[in-house]
Amino acid sequence: MRDVAVIGIGMNKWGELWPSRIRDLYVEAALLALDDAGVDKIDSMYVGCMSSGLLVGQEHLGALMADYLGQAPVPATRVESACASGGVALRQGFIEVASGMSDVVLVGGVEKMTDIDGGSTTYALATAADQEYEGFHGVTFPGLYAMMARAHMARYGTTREQLAQVAVKNHENGAKNPRAQFPFTTTLEGVMTSTMVADPLRLMDCSPVTDGAAAVVLSTVEMAKKLKRHPLVKITGSGQASASIALHARADLTWLGSTEAAAKTACKMARCTPREADLFEVHDCFTIAEIMVLEALGLVEKGKGGPATAAGLTALGGEFPVNASGGLKAKGHPVGATGVAQIVELAEQLRGDAGARQVKGAKRGLAQNMGGTGASATVHILEVES
Amino acid sequence: MRDVAVIGIGMNKWGELWPSRIRDLYVEAALLALDDAGVDKIDSMYVGCMSSGLLVGQEHLGALMADYLGQAPVPATRVESACASGGVALRQGFIEVASGMSDVVLVGGVEKMTDIDGGSTTYALATAADQEYEGFHGVTFPGLYAMMARAHMARYGTTREQLAQVAVKNHENGAKNPRAQFPFTTTLEGVMTSTMVADPLRLMDCSPVTDGAAAVVLSTVEMAKKLKRHPLVKITGSGQASASIALHARADLTWLGSTEAAAKTACKMARCTPREADLFEVHDCFTIAEIMVLEALGLVEKGKGGPATAAGLTALGGEFPVNASGGLKAKGHPVGATGVAQIVELAEQLRGDAGARQVKGAKRGLAQNMGGTGASATVHILEVES
Repeated sequence: MRDVAVIGIGMNKWGELWPSRIRDLYVEAALLALDDAGVDKIDSMYVGCMSSGLLVGQEHLGALMADYLGQAPVPATRVESACASGGVALRQGFIEVASGMSDVVLVGGVEKMTDIDGGSTTYALATAADQEYEGFHGVTFPGLYAMMARAHMARYGTTREQLAQVAVKNHENGAKNPRAQFPFTTTLEGVMTSTMVADPLRLMDCSPVTDGAAAVVLSTVEMAKKLKRHPLVKITGSGQASASIALHARADLTWLGSTEAAAKTACKMARCTPREADLFEVHDCFTIAEIMVLEALGLVEKGKGGPATAAGLTALGGEFPVNASGGLKAKGHPVGATGVAQIVELAEQLRGDAGARQVKGAKRGLAQNMGGTGASATVHILEVES
Repeated sequence: MRDVAVIGIGMNKWGELWPSRIRDLYVEAALLALDDAGVDKIDSMYVGCMSSGLLVGQEHLGALMADYLGQAPVPATRVESACASGGVALRQGFIEVASGMSDVVLVGGVEKMTDIDGGSTTYALATAADQEYEGFHGVTFPGLYAMMARAHMARYGTTREQLAQVAVKNHENGAKNPRAQFPFTTTLEGVMTSTMVADPLRLMDCSPVTDGAAAVVLSTVEMAKKLKRHPLVKITGSGQASASIALHARADLTWLGSTEAAAKTACKMARCTPREADLFEVHDCFTIAEIMVLEALGLVEKGKGGPATAAGLTALGGEFPVNASGGLKAKGHPVGATGVAQIVELAEQLRGDAGARQVKGAKRGLAQNMGGTGASATVHILEVES
C-alpha cells in the first residue's frame, strides 16, 4: 500500500444556506479544495452524505456531483454511514489511493438539512438508529443520547455542569472559526437554562441542523512533494468499526466500542497511541458524546471525561485540545460533511494556518467521526512532515 | 495491486417477500455466500442499497447489517449509486482486497421495495434522476426511458417488435432460473398487448418492483486456492464511470457514455475486448436499455441492437448470450441487489453450475450495471481458471 497525502482542503461557511441547493454546496467546497491543491484533473471522487433521499428527494449523488463539478466521466461514488458518512468516504478515498488504483481522489461530504419538502429532519436523523426497535416507537435522536447521558451520570457521577462545559469550550473555540455556523461564546448558565430537548440534554447540549459541505483532495506523497504548495500532510492511520445499532443490544450504554476499535486499528497503522496526538477533532453531536469519546479513545480513564473537561484538559491550551474548530456544536453538523470537515480542520492546523484557534506546534492530529449512537465510527491520524 | 477472487456467492429467491424485512433479506444472502465460501470470519463488508431511507425509513445499513450478521465490529460501509449501487459496492470490495487492506470482504446488495410506509416506490426510483430538472416536473423513470426509446426508434428504426423480443428472450432464460421473481415465458404478442406504462414502453418492457438481496465473498487468489472449494473465479477487470445525470444535458439520448467508458477501463485492466467474453449480464431495466447497452459495449454497431436481438444473437445459444439469468426483467430488480446478483450469475456460470441455463464452456463473463438513465455505470470482467 502507498502512502497517502492530503494535498487540498476546502469548506464553505456553514449555516442555514437557503439560496444553495445540495449540488451547489458540494461543488463550492470541491472547487475550493481543488484550487487549494492546484489540480483540476481527478481520477475518482466520493460523496459522503447521509440522507439526501429523505431530506431533498435526491439519491445518486455521485453521478450528480461529478456532472455538476464538470468531472464526468470519472468514477463517482456516494457513501453512507449516517453521521459517519464523511469519515467513511474519506477512508474509501484513502484505500483507493493507497491501492494504486487512482492517483488523485476528491472526497467531499455534504448535507442539505434545512429545506425539507415533506417529512421532517427529526425523522430523517432517526434513520441512523434502529428504526424498527427505536425510531418507529417514538425515540428521537436526542432521546437516545439522553439515555446514554443518564446512564453515564448514574454510573460515574458525571454532572450537568460537566456536560455544559463541553458546549462552553466548543463555542469558545468556534467563536474563532470564521466558517462556523454559530461563532459566539456561551456560559454554563446559558447552556443550563436553554430549552429542554430530552432530559438531561438541553438545546445547547445539541449540535445544530446545518447546511454545508467540506472536501479534501487525496494523492500520493510523491505528487504532494512535486506540487510543493503546502507543508506535507499525510494520513498515517485509518480505522473503521461497527457496533450494535440499537442501544438495547449493547452490553454497556456508556461505552463507545466502535470508536475504541477504530482507534486501535488507526493507531496500529500509524504506530502511535491516541495520547500522542497533539489535537483532536471528535464527534460531539451532543455534549455527552464528546465526554464518552474522550474515554473510548483512552485519553482519560472510564468515567473521567466529565471531570477532565471541567478541569480544562480539552481546552485550546489544555493537555488534549479537542475540537479546536468549535466541533459539531458550534461549527455546525451537516451530517454527511462532518467527517470530512474534521480532516479540513486537522490539515489546516498541521499546516499552521488555523489563525486564532491554532494549536501551537501541532504535528499529529486525530479525527474521530461516528454514526448513530456509535454503531459506526472512523478514526484517522494525520501527520505533518517537518 | 493483488489479484482478487470470488470465493463465495449467495442469493435468495426474489419476489414480493412480505414476511422479510430488509435486514432479513441481506443476512440471508450473506449467510449463503459465506457458507458457499466456507468462511465465517470477514475483515470488512459492503452494502449496496439505493434508497432504504425513502423505502423503509432506515439509513446506516452498513452498521445494521454487520450487527444482524453477527460481524460487528468489522468495518461496514453502505454504498449508493442508484440502480448501480450493487456494482459500485462490488468495486469498493474489489479495491479493498486488491489494495492489501483486507483479505476477506463480503459484498452484498439489497433492496426492500414492496412494503412502503409513506411516499411511493415511483417517487423513490425517480431520485435516481435529476430531481430538480426531471422528477419534480413530473417525469417518472419509465417516462425517461420511453424518451430514450423514442429517440432510438426515430434515429435507427428500432421497432416495437425488437423491444418486445428483449423481454421474450429474458423470460425464456428466466423460466430456467429457480431464483427468478417471474420464471415464466411470454410471447411477442403478450409483451405488445400488455398495459401501457409510458409510450412506447408497456408493462412487459419494464423490470418489476422486487424485494431481494445477493452477496459475494471476495478474497485473494492465494486464499481461494487454499480453500479449493470451487473452480477459481477471478475478477480480472473493474471499471466505473459517470455521465450527465439529466437527459437534457446529454449530447445524444441514444448513447450510454458511462457504460462505454466503464467497459473501456475494465477491459484494459483485463486485457480483452467485450466481444471476447462468453456471456453477459447487463442492465435491462427496460427493454430499450438492453438494446442500448449492446451498442455501448461494442457488441454490435450503433443502432443495431434491435436487429441483433431479433436475429437471436443475444439468446442463450446465440453469439453473445445476454442475461442468461433472465435479467432484471424476469429475475427481478431489487435495485441495490442487481449489480451483485449479476456477479452471482457469472460466477455460477463460470463454475459450470447454472443448470438448464448454462452457457456451455463459458470461461469469461462481463457484468454491466447502471444507475439512473445511465449517469453511472460499472463493468466487471470475471474469468475462470481452467
